[in-house]
Amino acid sequence: MDMDIEELFQSPRLQLGMVLYPGFTMLDLLGPQSVLSLHSNSHFIASTLAPVPSDGGAALVPTTTFADAPKELDILFVPGGFGSNAAMQNPELLAFLAERGKTAKFVTSVCSGALVLGAAGLLQGYRAATHWAFYDALEALGSITPVRERVVMDRNRITSGGVTAGIDFGLVLLAQVRGEPVARLTQLLLEYDPAPPFDAGSPERAGADLTRQATAILSSSAAEAVRFALARRKALQAV
Amino acid sequence: MDMDIEELFQSPRLQLGMVLYPGFTMLDLLGPQSVLSLHSNSHFIASTLAPVPSDGGAALVPTTTFADAPKELDILFVPGGFGSNAAMQNPELLAFLAERGKTAKFVTSVCSGALVLGAAGLLQGYRAATHWAFYDALEALGSITPVRERVVMDRNRITSGGVTAGIDFGLVLLAQVRGEPVARLTQLLLEYDPAPPFDAGSPERAGADLTRQATAILSSSAAEAVRFALARRKALQAV
Repeated sequence: MDMDIEELFQSPRLQLGMVLYPGFTMLDLLGPQSVLSLHSNSHFIASTLAPVPSDGGAALVPTTTFADAPKELDILFVPGGFGSNAAMQNPELLAFLAERGKTAKFVTSVCSGALVLGAAGLLQGYRAATHWAFYDALEALGSITPVRERVVMDRNRITSGGVTAGIDFGLVLLAQVRGEPVARLTQLLLEYDPAPPFDAGSPERAGADLTRQATAILSSSAAEAVRFALARRKALQAV
Repeated sequence: MDMDIEELFQSPRLQLGMVLYPGFTMLDLLGPQSVLSLHSNSHFIASTLAPVPSDGGAALVPTTTFADAPKELDILFVPGGFGSNAAMQNPELLAFLAERGKTAKFVTSVCSGALVLGAAGLLQGYRAATHWAFYDALEALGSITPVRERVVMDRNRITSGGVTAGIDFGLVLLAQVRGEPVARLTQLLLEYDPAPPFDAGSPERAGADLTRQATAILSSSAAEAVRFALARRKALQAV
């Protein structure tokens, strides 16, 4: 369990490439980025260097563009968000993901980011997770095995559940690339000892009434995701 | 438990004022902001409108300045971070907090943000929480009762533990201002059903070896925080 702290921080830093698109969810991205940041060079990659608005009112500043991003990434990451439907139809973003996905050591997502990875053709033949309300869309992409787990690792693909699942995902990934002692140390630094005041974090725990309400809030976005997924499925089959 | 979704979103939106300073921790801020964003107008408040670099490599874009921020805030919030020591000595930031703290309905923080609130004179006579490694500094501010809990509410002050505690804090606060059904619905939308792959999120759970390592990583920042806290204590007593 003991480790040399100097050595921990002198390890070659991970090249972490996180794509941004309008309407991404900040917490999807900042959960894993916070876990990995001590050990990584974080590249926030977008179409241009203009700040990218998230779906919750905050805007993040890109550090590089699709054209200039590092060629070799240890981790390629896609967040979810209400903008993921549009991202599924963004040729520039999909081409970037398809290209970097060939060489990245890990290809990863949180929440509806899995739909964007799938639209880029990177999840065909893999098991994958997404936000609980978006499994129909994941299924509609075809040739993907949807799995209702918080973090799903299938070879070098790691996908995860909605929004807050990104912290759990980040720790799973960090343990893979740096070992469990480093992941545990990072968990302690982040004081990740969750104590939700309520028990309503999944449809099973929240019960039928709350799930009906949450489904209603997400229904038009979820239905659009299915339509876009079916369209992408045809395009991917035609390649 | 039933509620009208239209009514939920038509409620007067909360005025959420979150201060930014160089070296704040993004997740400290984005955890609660993600919980509150559906129900709030989020104001990210800084000295100027230039993007503010966090301590983890990401930069957030302010929406307003200390000079122009709304006068009446429902929630005044300060994140922690490696920059909180400098923030404890930033007269412009402390003056803003002291002023808005008089009228804000809730005065709140995550992580070492409590030290900044304390330096602004807003926690004297209150119970408060901070990151586990910064309790000596909280004590050094004087007239504050440090409490080792994840979220501590004392009248209209709500302070919380390190980094990831912000999600739990956000749900506690949302239940206060919108009721428990809305908080539970939001928890479900964010799929906040945490499943940490390891059990190392507090010194007690992580054990002596990991705690010694984490303490070493944080020691110079924690020692500086104590020195700055003692200096602020004198300044506050002299007022």
